Formats: sequence, structure tokens, C-alpha cells
Amino acid sequence: MKDGIDVLVHEVGPRDGLQSIQTIFPTEAKMDWIKREATAGVPQIQVGSFVPPKNLPQMADSGDVVRQSVNIPGLTVSALVPNLRGAENGMAAGAHQIGVVLSVSEAHNYSNVKRTVAESLDGFSEIVAHRDAHDEYKDIVISGGLATAFGCTIDGQVAPSDVMRVAEEFLKRGADRISVADTVGYANPGQVKALFAELYRTVGTDVAVGAHFHDTRGLGMANAFAALEAGVRELDSCLGGLGGCPYAPGASGNIVTEDLVFMLEAMGMRTGIDLDGLLESREIMERHLTDEPTHGAYVTAGRPLGFQSATAA
Amino acid sequence: MKDGIDVLVHEVGPRDGLQSIQTIFPTEAKMDWIKREATAGVPQIQVGSFVPPKNLPQMADSGDVVRQSVNIPGLTVSALVPNLRGAENGMAAGAHQIGVVLSVSEAHNYSNVKRTVAESLDGFSEIVAHRDAHDEYKDIVISGGLATAFGCTIDGQVAPSDVMRVAEEFLKRGADRISVADTVGYANPGQVKALFAELYRTVGTDVAVGAHFHDTRGLGMANAFAALEAGVRELDSCLGGLGGCPYAPGASGNIVTEDLVFMLEAMGMRTGIDLDGLLESREIMERHLTDEPTHGAYVTAGRPLGFQSATAA
Repeated sequence: MKDGIDVLVHEVGPRDGLQSIQTIFPTEAKMDWIKREATAGVPQIQVGSFVPPKNLPQMADSGDVVRQSVNIPGLTVSALVPNLRGAENGMAAGAHQIGVVLSVSEAHNYSNVKRTVAESLDGFSEIVAHRDAHDEYKDIVISGGLATAFGCTIDGQVAPSDVMRVAEEFLKRGADRISVADTVGYANPGQVKALFAELYRTVGTDVAVGAHFHDTRGLGMANAFAALEAGVRELDSCLGGLGGCPYAPGASGNIVTEDLVFMLEAMGMRTGIDLDGLLESREIMERHLTDEPTHGAYVTAGRPLGFQSATAA
Repeated sequence: MKDGIDVLVHEVGPRDGLQSIQTIFPTEAKMDWIKREATAGVPQIQVGSFVPPKNLPQMADSGDVVRQSVNIPGLTVSALVPNLRGAENGMAAGAHQIGVVLSVSEAHNYSNVKRTVAESLDGFSEIVAHRDAHDEYKDIVISGGLATAFGCTIDGQVAPSDVMRVAEEFLKRGADRISVADTVGYANPGQVKALFAELYRTVGTDVAVGAHFHDTRGLGMANAFAALEAGVRELDSCLGGLGGCPYAPGASGNIVTEDLVFMLEAMGMRTGIDLDGLLESREIMERHLTDEPTHGAYVTAGRPLGFQSATAA
């Protein structure tokens, strides 16, 4: 955890938000957004995804975006990669953190990448090996992401034991952290609290664990609170709740960054983030959108009378 | 608690929702809504408010609505009253539960009803005395409501000690239950959990305690989960998140009944409510609306694959 913050808010909008909408942001527009949010104090931003441009043209400039973003003082720059090829490109561009995601659900994983979970785990090992083979990459953090950890649109329920098994495999294979995602918005807060409690019992409380929620059924923020209750201190979110999951029909956007930061700061948990700066970032982002809906409540309601953020205190 | 349910969902839309919007529902439209929701299994509905018709013309037919609603089998019919006069009318109409609300914040209470909190408490005692003076009213439940318990648009912060004092006064003066409200949408889940924990320590865990949340800053459902965590088993909500608080600028609607029921049922807590029936009720309600926004996520996303409600299990 960075100094002076209690919870790490990981903005994933430039990746998860933009990859799920029709509007294609030019590189300059992405950088406007990323720079403004970093200035507001957001400590970590997922700026792109190293996938083949024919699959996601919105992400075709991820190399440029990473190269520019790593010059922003104090910002941790993360990028998503689907395989070794993507990891090579992401590391070469200078990303501080490389996220590798597989679906705990075999059916969902196969539907996405035509690989079994075991094959995806082997791919993960290749990425770790690539990092470890290059001394200049030794500070790169590799994150193992567990998608559909709370349920899947193909298989329905996903067994917690499968989540534990994949989490242990990630760590055994060299993951520096793990991230647990409700990819399709199936989770409820009771389930979230129980799953993270079991996860900490399984992997120990020293492992950095992040959580990724969508607000598909209105429970995103309740799930975030439940994760905090279980001890999670790293949360993904997206400015304006932009986007969703292109592979998950019906899944709406990620939880809203500004609502999440309001909740954390109101609860006395320092994020290092200035809420007014987030709203300005949101305006900058919205300028580049074409007919894409944004979400969130704090943007309309503003701060309560007498509100003091933990970060400002 | 009624048989076979774990959490009491108290629909307040026909009162809190309708009093905050422009559309005036004719009595027949209110009854269509109330009957369909009762058929869906909603155990308790706040059907009206016994206020002077010149203040809230939407509520002018509350006597008729109560008289018709008490004929619906199994439904607990609640009504809000501001004073003795309203309570006389509400009891005469046959309401099963009479809700009396005051603001814990002196400034908010005075702004609303031109009374100090002490004067409002004396008014509450008159209502209890009226019930107790009539043997035919002996089964009427009187609820003491604590508005602005988590903050106030005039005073800002509200001291938990004031909440405890008013709660104890209500109980000393004969309240059968108490209800704690985030009237203006200031609450966060950490605060909610702490306040209800302190409340149960103060009044004991045998007292029936309800919670009332608005989703003004996106934390309504997180607050509901936090209240459940603290032991609360009665929650107010509103179909489609209709309405808000006419005295609280910027306050959006109550938490959404169908999202709340989805959360509870997903968590294994029986509400006795059929989710499909709720969506039908929502359609019936929306037929009568004119340009009023409704809210909610479950209505769009539907149930997760393989979802089993606790009530149906």
C-alpha cells in the first residue's frame, strides 16, 4: 500500500470502461482523462489492454498510452494482457503492473479464450517467466485475476473451492497479488464477505487481494462494503460507471469511482483522492463520449453538509 | 416477525414515493398497485399519510386507501401521521400500524413542523394515549420514527447520543417499535453499522427496529446490508425507487424494493416475496406515472442463471 492511504482505488475506466462502449477515444483524450484523474490523487489506473487490435480497436494505442502514463509522477500504471505476447508488449511499454485474468468457470474461460483453466494457468506461468528472465522487469507486479468468481452466465454457480484452487495456483506460479472479480454482476454481499473470508484463510492475510465489482443488479457498492468488511483494501472502479463486460450479456458498468471514493472517505478510510478533482475528471471524460450513458449518484447529490473527507482531515 | 420470513420488507412507495412526485394517483390506481404488491407477498405496505390535504393533495384519499387495504388478506397496513389529529383519522380508518416521525435534528424538526423535538415527543405521547383510551385500537402498533438520524441538511452532523436519547424517549412513551431513517441520504455503511450496534446496546435487542434508507449518494443498498449486519430485520423500500423527501433538497428516492428483495433472497434471507410479482407490480405502478423517473437495476438485469430465491427454496 502506498503511504498515507488506507484503501487503494484502482481506476479501470480507460480499460474496462472504454473496451465496452462504442466510442473510440483518441490517445489524446485518454491521456486528458488519465492525467486529470492522477492529479486528483488516484494512485493506480489501468490504462489499456494488450490485445490484438482487430479484437478491440479501442485498445490499439495501449502501448502509447502506457508509455505516456508512466511519466505521470506518482501514478502506478497497470495494463491487462491476455497472453505472453500481450505481456511482452505491456512490459516493453513500461507498465508497472500487469494484470492477467482467467475465468474460474471453465465454460466462461473456454468461451473467451478457447483455453481450459489449466492452459490459462500455464500461460500465466510463461508471463511470470518472461518477467523473471529480464532484470529490467524485476519491479513489475504481476496480478492474477479470477473472473466469474461469484457466478457465470454460462455455468451459473461457481464453486468457492474452484476459486480457492485457482488463487493458490496463481500464487504458486508467482503472482504478486490476486484480484477477484464479479465479472457478470451476480454477487451478493453475504457471498462476497464469505468468499473473501475463505480466501484469506486459504492464502493468508499477507497476500494483496483486490476486488472488482459490477453494479449489474444494484449491489455493487454493497459488495464493495462487504469486501472491505472482509479485509480487502484494493478495489477496482470506473469513473462514471462507464462500460461493462463485452462477453457478459446484461452486465452493466463497474462500480462508480466517485461514489466509491465518497463511501470510503465518509467511512474514514483515506484514498488520497480529491472528490472535486474526480468530478472534474468525469467532465473531461464525458466530453469525449458519444451517446454513452454514465452512472453515479454523488455527481448529482454532492457532498453532505459538514462532510469532511478522511484524506483532507 | 411474520411466520416464514427472515426480514420484513416494508413497502413505502404509496406514501413516501407518491408524496414526493408530481403525478397524483387516483385511489383506484393506488389500490391496483397495493393489491398487486400484496399478492406478490409484500407483507407490509405504508399506504398513505394523514396530513392536511392542502399540504399533500396526493394523500387526501388516505382514509379510503386504508379502508380498502385492510381488506387485503395477510397485509399489514401502515400509515404515517404527523400529529394527534392524523392519528385519530388513521386509527379510525383501521390502519394496523401508525408511524409517527420526528427529526432528531432540532433544526430539521422545527423547519418541518414548527415544533421542538420535546414538543414532538409530547405529541407522540398523545397519540399513544389516544390508542390506549380505545379498546378497539389495542392491537394497533405505534412506530416511533427517527428522521435525519445520520445527518441533516440544516445542521450537518447529528450526534448518535441524540439518536439514542430520542429512541429511549419513544420507547418510554409507549412506542412498540422504532424506525431509524437516513432521511436525506447522508449515511455511509460504517456509520450505519456503528449506529445500529449502539442502538441495540442502548435499547436492547428485543426491540423491533426498522431502517429507512435513501439512495441519494449511491450507498442505499450498502447501508441496507450494513443494517442487516448489525441485526436489523425490518427495512423500508420503494418499488422502482420512486420519490424522495420533499423537505430534503437533492434527496433521491428510497432504496429500490425489487433490488432489496433480490439482495435478501440471494443472501438466503426469506422475504416471502416473489420477484416476478414485484416486477409486475412495478409495471402497474409505472402505467400511472407521468414523466416521473423510476430506478433500479434488477428490473433490467433479471435473475442470475441458476438463481434460487430463499423464499422459493
